Amino acid sequence: MAASRRRTSAEFQGNGSLMPPSANAIASPRGGGAPSREEHANGGGPALSSVLSATEVTGRRRPAGRMPLWRLGMFASLALNAAALALLLPRYIVSHPHHPGVVSLDQQHHACAPQPGTSGAAASAPSTGKPAVTSNSVIHLDHGDPTMFEAFWRETGDAAELVVPGWQTMSYFSDVSNVCWFMEPDFDQQVRRLHRTVGNAAVDGYHVLVGTGSTQLLMAALYALSPADAVQPTSVVSTAPYYSWYPAVTDFLRSGLFRWAGDASSFIGDAYIELVCSPNNPDGAIRDAVLGSGGSGKAVHDLAYYWPQYTPITRRADHDIMLFTMSKSTGHAGTRIGWALVKDREVARRMTKFVELNTVSVSKDSQLRAAKVLRAVSDGYDGGASASRHRLFDFGRRKMAERWRMLREAAAASGIFSLPEETSGRCNFANETAANNPAFAWLRCDREDVEDCAGFLRGHKIVTRSGNQFGAGPRYVRVSMLDRDDAYDIFIRRLASLK
Amino acid sequence: MAASRRRTSAEFQGNGSLMPPSANAIASPRGGGAPSREEHANGGGPALSSVLSATEVTGRRRPAGRMPLWRLGMFASLALNAAALALLLPRYIVSHPHHPGVVSLDQQHHACAPQPGTSGAAASAPSTGKPAVTSNSVIHLDHGDPTMFEAFWRETGDAAELVVPGWQTMSYFSDVSNVCWFMEPDFDQQVRRLHRTVGNAAVDGYHVLVGTGSTQLLMAALYALSPADAVQPTSVVSTAPYYSWYPAVTDFLRSGLFRWAGDASSFIGDAYIELVCSPNNPDGAIRDAVLGSGGSGKAVHDLAYYWPQYTPITRRADHDIMLFTMSKSTGHAGTRIGWALVKDREVARRMTKFVELNTVSVSKDSQLRAAKVLRAVSDGYDGGASASRHRLFDFGRRKMAERWRMLREAAAASGIFSLPEETSGRCNFANETAANNPAFAWLRCDREDVEDCAGFLRGHKIVTRSGNQFGAGPRYVRVSMLDRDDAYDIFIRRLASLK
Repeated sequence: MAASRRRTSAEFQGNGSLMPPSANAIASPRGGGAPSREEHANGGGPALSSVLSATEVTGRRRPAGRMPLWRLGMFASLALNAAALALLLPRYIVSHPHHPGVVSLDQQHHACAPQPGTSGAAASAPSTGKPAVTSNSVIHLDHGDPTMFEAFWRETGDAAELVVPGWQTMSYFSDVSNVCWFMEPDFDQQVRRLHRTVGNAAVDGYHVLVGTGSTQLLMAALYALSPADAVQPTSVVSTAPYYSWYPAVTDFLRSGLFRWAGDASSFIGDAYIELVCSPNNPDGAIRDAVLGSGGSGKAVHDLAYYWPQYTPITRRADHDIMLFTMSKSTGHAGTRIGWALVKDREVARRMTKFVELNTVSVSKDSQLRAAKVLRAVSDGYDGGASASRHRLFDFGRRKMAERWRMLREAAAASGIFSLPEETSGRCNFANETAANNPAFAWLRCDREDVEDCAGFLRGHKIVTRSGNQFGAGPRYVRVSMLDRDDAYDIFIRRLASLK
Repeated sequence: MAASRRRTSAEFQGNGSLMPPSANAIASPRGGGAPSREEHANGGGPALSSVLSATEVTGRRRPAGRMPLWRLGMFASLALNAAALALLLPRYIVSHPHHPGVVSLDQQHHACAPQPGTSGAAASAPSTGKPAVTSNSVIHLDHGDPTMFEAFWRETGDAAELVVPGWQTMSYFSDVSNVCWFMEPDFDQQVRRLHRTVGNAAVDGYHVLVGTGSTQLLMAALYALSPADAVQPTSVVSTAPYYSWYPAVTDFLRSGLFRWAGDASSFIGDAYIELVCSPNNPDGAIRDAVLGSGGSGKAVHDLAYYWPQYTPITRRADHDIMLFTMSKSTGHAGTRIGWALVKDREVARRMTKFVELNTVSVSKDSQLRAAKVLRAVSDGYDGGASASRHRLFDFGRRKMAERWRMLREAAAASGIFSLPEETSGRCNFANETAANNPAFAWLRCDREDVEDCAGFLRGHKIVTRSGNQFGAGPRYVRVSMLDRDDAYDIFIRRLASLK
């Protein structure tokens, strides 16, 4: 259960006082008058005699039984402090968990306050991804689970924290005047801002569409670009090695509108949709479309990795359809948010229609979270004098450079593996030359007797994805570079030891 | 942007004191001693002379220049009061907006604190659904946008509020040991708890699957139940009038796996998937499957409306596949969460695979929000002595009964419309007889010269969905009963006036 806060009823307890005990015993008169038992409301004590003396001396009178106003004020002040503590303390515990990496179930219980009811079980804590690894674990690097970025986001405190009141964003609708009627305006705004800040894609003159991950938007693009009245399904192609999910997503429903047709480099035909992924998944190569677009041929550009942590930003991309995802830009894979920049209004409308028929719209909670996260990213770079000190791309670039250095060393130490050559370019964002450090390592096993690299590595408790799935050979595997440090370090050690 | 909270630095200001001004001027000695200027740290005033006299009288000594401890304590206490106010006040403003229905942009700005950077535009507020209506507005009741429930959730304070730290649930994975590996454990738990509390569906022995709304799970069920190697697509049927989206969702991709085949009552064939919606959308009828299941025929039960606000809970449903959605149970349509209760493990596995290929997984932010909301619902009923006073189904049942009463009166006043007969049954949940009060009104225009009811109403600025789309005739329209009070009241007034 998400970290939650309940207001507990404030209770004033005399022993919760923040004033030293002796202060309670001191009475201070406003006026004089015959002292009586009612005037000892503060409790008594030796000091009282001096007060009584004072009243006698000054001759001022105080109505019998009335506590001096300042004393009442003091009690009130102490009561407010106790109440404030009761309200603030649970919040502090939730925001600053002491357990590194995980908010423990105990902390969740504490933060959530006692749950009413005997049948209401204690809340399960929010998940924390794949199980923790030990030096004997099987290391799973076959998915691009971007948990490497957790360390960065932990440091940002509450800059990217989302609070959603129970009554908020309940409607299906966000902005009925927008082509993408279910898109939260703040998300739209933050997407545009980030692209302007990074300079990796044009946004002026583009429609922004939101999707449940860029995977949904990929299908939406296929739907939008395939003529509804075509006799044959439109061919969908991409240059090998291509992302293993392209054939799967295209074909799993055996759609009559579009059908996977394999490697773009060997495709012959007039009507097609070419998927261009750059930097490419799996091998990180910088790609352009190989088939001409225009006529009946269209291109969809998957720019999931076109961010400074992976590659130099060499130009402001301005293709007709460009896809991006939170999963690989900020690491928030669990939020399931992707977006598309689309030039053509009719294409944007049809893509929106796809999302409408598929999932009615896109989670507003996720959009609001994504907007908050994207804002935090931009704040690190375009904040002027007040820029936050949390710079995602600096962190990411440093991290990826380090990991590739470790990987190249390990491959060299092993002697039986090869990797793509290192390439670099001028990064306009960082104003420096930067290397390509792809999110996946396209590893090839060169040992003659190892034809199935994935199987070989699996035997050494390293799970990768076989090159087979990418339209390449089984000597290749794709390895995620985005997992947590502990898993990555174990992988590096094991790889270096393989002969 | 979601309501967010930033900790502002606490500033102590003397005039923020909660003690009456005169109290500051009163000094209270602990001991005696020659008074000096340093001892007047509290400020001076006429009362000081009495203190000075007191010290002279008692003869106690106090080190020159030291402020009495209690006075320090008082300042400290006041400083803490000011700090607490600074921390708590923004939170209060966010949780309790004064603007009915909308958190104003101003309030968002205040709550979010100043945004750093000159190029960072102020956050757009989270959306609030369809635009507000006036007595001249076109009233849109063609979608089941469940904003009627907002009023309930506003009253629950922060019981259903979600807080998501920036580093939380970033992974794709939730529980890799579960068939539904992307489902948050707390969501699973709360779904089971709610069904046990309400008694509307069996959960023991069932897999719970989560989806991006029940629409996605509907497609997932079609995918799971259609043989992958079939020569012909499996026929998908439902008894007219059926939910207008069933044909649309089934056919929009022209899948080779499944194809819409119309009205179940007239279907002839061996292999089919029957969609049974009960209470039915659009007419609220209580439905059973009409085709036998078993053999090659399968049934999917859409129980979106099988909740106490719409219908008596007459039995604990225990079908093979049962679909539910947040949109119609709690009103959180924007969260995009539905769930399925599935008996067969292999079917559950294939449905999960569909969601994986379609959107990789389901937003964890949405799942956590849904879990929090469902928990709040259950807390109202099974909390024993500590049960919350917020009872969703009581609110909903009262509301729906009132709206249907208004509708029947308006139809009677008009004289040209008819509605389904009122039916009732024994509700095991509420332990009383309860009427059926469907989420949609299946309205028929009986005026002879009006063949197209939707067109007729559109001419009177009421937008509904034509019976055409539900496999019924154009004399029927489906009207949402779930919109906000202002829109509904205008609809009722206009309807009553039509002759």
